[in-house]
Amino acid sequence: MDFIISRDSLLQALTRVSGFVEKKVQSGSILCSVLLQADASGMLRYTGTDKTLTLFGQVPATVKVPGDIAVDAGYLLNTVKSLGGETVTCTLMDQQRLEVRSGSSNFRLVGQAGGEFPVTPPLDQSRSLRISAEALCRVLDQTLFSVAPDDNRYGLNGAHFEEVTGPDGTSLLRVVATDGNRLSWSQAPFTGELAIGRKSLVPRKGLFEVRRLIDGVKGDVEIAFGERAAVVRLEDCTIHMRLLEADFPDYRQVLPSAFKRRASVERAVLQEALKRVLIFATDTSRSVKFALADDTLTLTSRKLDAGESKEEVPMDLHGEPITMGFNGRFLQEVLGVLGSTRVLLELGDTLSPCLVKDPDSGDALFVVMPVRLD
Amino acid sequence: MDFIISRDSLLQALTRVSGFVEKKVQSGSILCSVLLQADASGMLRYTGTDKTLTLFGQVPATVKVPGDIAVDAGYLLNTVKSLGGETVTCTLMDQQRLEVRSGSSNFRLVGQAGGEFPVTPPLDQSRSLRISAEALCRVLDQTLFSVAPDDNRYGLNGAHFEEVTGPDGTSLLRVVATDGNRLSWSQAPFTGELAIGRKSLVPRKGLFEVRRLIDGVKGDVEIAFGERAAVVRLEDCTIHMRLLEADFPDYRQVLPSAFKRRASVERAVLQEALKRVLIFATDTSRSVKFALADDTLTLTSRKLDAGESKEEVPMDLHGEPITMGFNGRFLQEVLGVLGSTRVLLELGDTLSPCLVKDPDSGDALFVVMPVRLD
Repeated sequence: MDFIISRDSLLQALTRVSGFVEKKVQSGSILCSVLLQADASGMLRYTGTDKTLTLFGQVPATVKVPGDIAVDAGYLLNTVKSLGGETVTCTLMDQQRLEVRSGSSNFRLVGQAGGEFPVTPPLDQSRSLRISAEALCRVLDQTLFSVAPDDNRYGLNGAHFEEVTGPDGTSLLRVVATDGNRLSWSQAPFTGELAIGRKSLVPRKGLFEVRRLIDGVKGDVEIAFGERAAVVRLEDCTIHMRLLEADFPDYRQVLPSAFKRRASVERAVLQEALKRVLIFATDTSRSVKFALADDTLTLTSRKLDAGESKEEVPMDLHGEPITMGFNGRFLQEVLGVLGSTRVLLELGDTLSPCLVKDPDSGDALFVVMPVRLD
Repeated sequence: MDFIISRDSLLQALTRVSGFVEKKVQSGSILCSVLLQADASGMLRYTGTDKTLTLFGQVPATVKVPGDIAVDAGYLLNTVKSLGGETVTCTLMDQQRLEVRSGSSNFRLVGQAGGEFPVTPPLDQSRSLRISAEALCRVLDQTLFSVAPDDNRYGLNGAHFEEVTGPDGTSLLRVVATDGNRLSWSQAPFTGELAIGRKSLVPRKGLFEVRRLIDGVKGDVEIAFGERAAVVRLEDCTIHMRLLEADFPDYRQVLPSAFKRRASVERAVLQEALKRVLIFATDTSRSVKFALADDTLTLTSRKLDAGESKEEVPMDLHGEPITMGFNGRFLQEVLGVLGSTRVLLELGDTLSPCLVKDPDSGDALFVVMPVRLD
């Protein structure tokens, strides 16, 4: 193997792949490696995997001798990052060593034969959908924060994908996430076909990597579901994610069908007020007391032996006054992913879930469970 | 106590004090607090201490009722940081609570009586020196990185201050630091008197806080040494540091009096090359092999099972070729605090210390001990 490649292109590829290789296992494991495959067509293909999540990518290179090798992804990234020149020359040496040269710098990285690298099974599905990268960014931003980080209720560790029909009959991709204390869904139109196999629960880690890779991407992204895996295809790379073998809860049951009170507040004002009351809401549930009466929402928090804080937010309330508690951080995260000037809070009784909405858009919905006030 | 103060001034004061209060002890300890004293002269005085290091400062305020209270420095900093208004009103309530108001925000912080706050003894010294803040920044930058972080050789945990006479007869303040593997000294002219008491070994933490506070300060700084403490005075605050009760080693003994080889290299080129070879110099001593021959300095490093790297740096060498090892990180840190275009490396034999200098300035000197190559 022998190829010359632009330093910046190689650096971008290795930065992308760094989120996909295993970091917890001992250095030297093949799962810490990136597989490099230089082929005669003038492409360097790169692959990184932790066996559940795989990135396949390609970048143009001047390939003199085709070949492949797997080298530690972290060391190669640090090496390329440190180089000052515009191009990098990579040559396979004896004993599976990769020589990396640029200017007066010469590195030799210990590698493993490309054949040692784990093979990701191809997707058993040809049908796919297309969605704008920009819309997918919004949908993921509005849902991923609600996925449980590492729950023993296995079905909560991913986001659920499904197709719904919009009011005007268009096909929408809806992504739903919950950690048991809050729930979000967000949707956007797509073309093509969402052909779900046995499951449609996509793991959190994979979706975070998808979100990272589509940041700023123009144009469409392709998504396909197989029996055990889903793939997301961008112009120059493909993310392969093994699906979670668990059931997502029947989330429609959780959604309140009616409300007794509706409050409308300015989003930025509530967000700022929450930031301040959270300073003294330091218990595990970050409890903030919400008192809704007349035209004022009063937020209070208290930490014994430290202090307390109080904020007043102007509000339009329809319904009876009520006082109830919420995890202030959860509401803050919802407000952070809404783009609207005002938000609606739809409330039932003291222990009923709160629904948070953009008053002008039905593209997303957020449910936050209340906390008991002592 | 009742005063109105600019939010930005109070925030700056609390940010400064945050480096001086104890963070390791449990919240609620008086050592986590900042003492606020509002007096009739229109000043808010603030004090933070961990009992070895104290900051006294003052900031203008509109004082309606003089008084004092000690409140948790971290909570107060977060509170003031979160406020959006231009001014903040602070009022002492019953039961040692401090009310902090701004706009529609209202905080009440639990405090302790000002009388509970530990008293720092005043300095038993009236003589002092004056040095430009800019020069003191350079002197501290060129020495602090060499202080041992937490050594059981207690005398290495601080920097030694002494007076030396420059070639033209001027009085210079010299600061010296070593961790046993490297040594730096740096000096600058001063006026007034350096009247050292019993000791002149200033703890690392205090000097880092001094460095932080004088960053960007124009004009002079005053320094005075007492029997057990030293103070550094700025325009609007004073740092009081308890001195280390230990002896600094006789550092002049370590300085090589002659050299057999002298190499001159471009500082930035060596710095870049070191950055790259350090990727594979991951043992505890960050060993890099330096081979000096003819007009090239060749740097190499190697990590078993990972890889190796080689860099060539153009060099002017006077003396015989030699190959020896150094901690690459130590040399990198020295190069980072030198401002010159070229640097001189003065070498003896394989296991003799290396002296690093700016060829055009005698204001600072760096010694790095070699490491054995396997």
